[in-house]
Amino acid sequence: MAIARGYAATDASKPLEFFTFERREPREDDVVIDIKFSGVCHSDIHQARNEWGNSRFPMVPGHEIAGVVIAVGPKVTRFKVGDHVGVGCFVDSCIHCQTRDVDNEQYLPGLVQTYNDVEADGQTPTYGGYSDHIVVKEGYVLSIPDNLPLDKSAPLLCAGITLYSPLAHWKAGPGKKVAIVGMGGLGHMGVKIGAAMGADVTVLSQTLSKKDDGLKLGAKAYYATSDAETFKTLAGTFDLIICTVGKDIDWNAYLNLLKVDGTMVLVGVPEKPVPVHAFSLIPGRRSLAGSMIGSIKETQEMLDFCGKHNITAEIELIDIKDINTAYERVIKSDVRYRFVIDMATLPKA
Amino acid sequence: MAIARGYAATDASKPLEFFTFERREPREDDVVIDIKFSGVCHSDIHQARNEWGNSRFPMVPGHEIAGVVIAVGPKVTRFKVGDHVGVGCFVDSCIHCQTRDVDNEQYLPGLVQTYNDVEADGQTPTYGGYSDHIVVKEGYVLSIPDNLPLDKSAPLLCAGITLYSPLAHWKAGPGKKVAIVGMGGLGHMGVKIGAAMGADVTVLSQTLSKKDDGLKLGAKAYYATSDAETFKTLAGTFDLIICTVGKDIDWNAYLNLLKVDGTMVLVGVPEKPVPVHAFSLIPGRRSLAGSMIGSIKETQEMLDFCGKHNITAEIELIDIKDINTAYERVIKSDVRYRFVIDMATLPKA
Repeated sequence: MAIARGYAATDASKPLEFFTFERREPREDDVVIDIKFSGVCHSDIHQARNEWGNSRFPMVPGHEIAGVVIAVGPKVTRFKVGDHVGVGCFVDSCIHCQTRDVDNEQYLPGLVQTYNDVEADGQTPTYGGYSDHIVVKEGYVLSIPDNLPLDKSAPLLCAGITLYSPLAHWKAGPGKKVAIVGMGGLGHMGVKIGAAMGADVTVLSQTLSKKDDGLKLGAKAYYATSDAETFKTLAGTFDLIICTVGKDIDWNAYLNLLKVDGTMVLVGVPEKPVPVHAFSLIPGRRSLAGSMIGSIKETQEMLDFCGKHNITAEIELIDIKDINTAYERVIKSDVRYRFVIDMATLPKA
Repeated sequence: MAIARGYAATDASKPLEFFTFERREPREDDVVIDIKFSGVCHSDIHQARNEWGNSRFPMVPGHEIAGVVIAVGPKVTRFKVGDHVGVGCFVDSCIHCQTRDVDNEQYLPGLVQTYNDVEADGQTPTYGGYSDHIVVKEGYVLSIPDNLPLDKSAPLLCAGITLYSPLAHWKAGPGKKVAIVGMGGLGHMGVKIGAAMGADVTVLSQTLSKKDDGLKLGAKAYYATSDAETFKTLAGTFDLIICTVGKDIDWNAYLNLLKVDGTMVLVGVPEKPVPVHAFSLIPGRRSLAGSMIGSIKETQEMLDFCGKHNITAEIELIDIKDINTAYERVIKSDVRYRFVIDMATLPKA
């Protein structure tokens, strides 16, 4: 066992604070990673505050992990000391089956989340990226292309793949009109990735306050959803709409912006069920779908794609001591566009 | 002009009654059809009673028309006197455009419905199949295979294509598990067509009262949705669910029966919007979609498929004088499985 330093929520009502805990000694197929940067995802907040009702405390959040390999087990073949690597939302999968479904593992039972979960043994808690190091099975470690800075790459591990996966699955590309709803941590990645795929990307945001950024990141157009005209102007326009917002919005109004055979994909989770009218779907053979992160295979594909197109997140780098303030700012959407914790700011003990 | 005999609703609150009206003389590209049989669709009732708020009176309902060609205009090339033909839900399309989109015409503006609509001139009312004859542009007339009896073929023109289209679009076939929700006029066609496509078909019906029929028509399994165990037993089972029911059901419960990447398609229209939870879609990349009839091209493909597989509807043949009683029975789901009017029972004058 090795002692790890990190920041944890000790219960749902307390701010995160310094915390030490044990990480396992590397097994033969493990990679030990010196965590350099950890992104702050809105789901970290939901879980630290037990808003989904499934929290385990103490909890070390963080599933947008970027770092450097400092040790490998004897059976590790794909990584060596010094490699730039990442860890995303899960550290094991398909633990109940004989075989791993490399294409759909994120949707199947037997996924072990990077934090707020237990390992395959059914009892060892998993602790996330707000810490100095992590020990992960080789098959769940991602290679980060050398041309990408590690700090700005951390958010690719969740925000990046959350947008890449539906854009790839529903074939965003040349000739396709794609709308990204919400210009936040997820949305701004969708603009960059969608544009790099060759799609014609439009941002639908509550206001025009981030319009300049949106156009700079690759959007061809930018509309305010607070303006009712937007929904008239854009009716029947899009092949694909990716909805990143977690607020309760009227999905029917957005479904009406789809072409025949268009699909709206939810990647943000509204708190309440949304009333959907059959007439929003039937008279255009439209689909309302959901998508969740991606497999390890697809996440590596996404990182390679980002390496090739020089895509990383727009970030605000913070000290770990400011994490609780950062949470409040995330809730107010007051960040452009993702907080990333500089793990070098962790107290030494 | 020729005088036509039929049955019409003269306003939303009155029963249907005998009615005479004018049909146009055939133009050069028209086909004149002696209507032998006309199916009774639930949407006839919605419209005759102005339940969708868009009714034009007097209204001659009927868009499941089967008959025999009695005259053709000089430019008609595909039909001759004596041919068995059908007319479905629309008699013109894409009237605002220069070109006809033969694959998606049913979803585009400029569709002229067989009844309760006006022709391309913007003023001449369309009257449907509860009548002795109809005059239709050649491009909207379907060929009914000679081996299919006309009375049992009439419902293929709406009920048949409404199920065939989503089953074909979402690739029902060998190796696919398909559920048909509702064992009525639409549902029983879905069982027959899905089974003929080679899919493994399960019926989900409120009770088991029609189980024997369902299995006889081609279903491999039949479950009662009034039994909560059904939703536990079948969780994660289906690639495709076609929902034919118009009652307000909990779509989330059905979405949970889908496999990863499964799709539930609505072809019935519930009265009220249904609250859908993002968590019903996201953790399995599931889709909720809608589908509506089919193009003329696809409707002909469906009729040819039914001819090849000897598929027609299960019907109760009625006299036109019993149409109002039949409407009441449709509302109570008291029909196995589609009423078809024998148009020979129309009064002579």
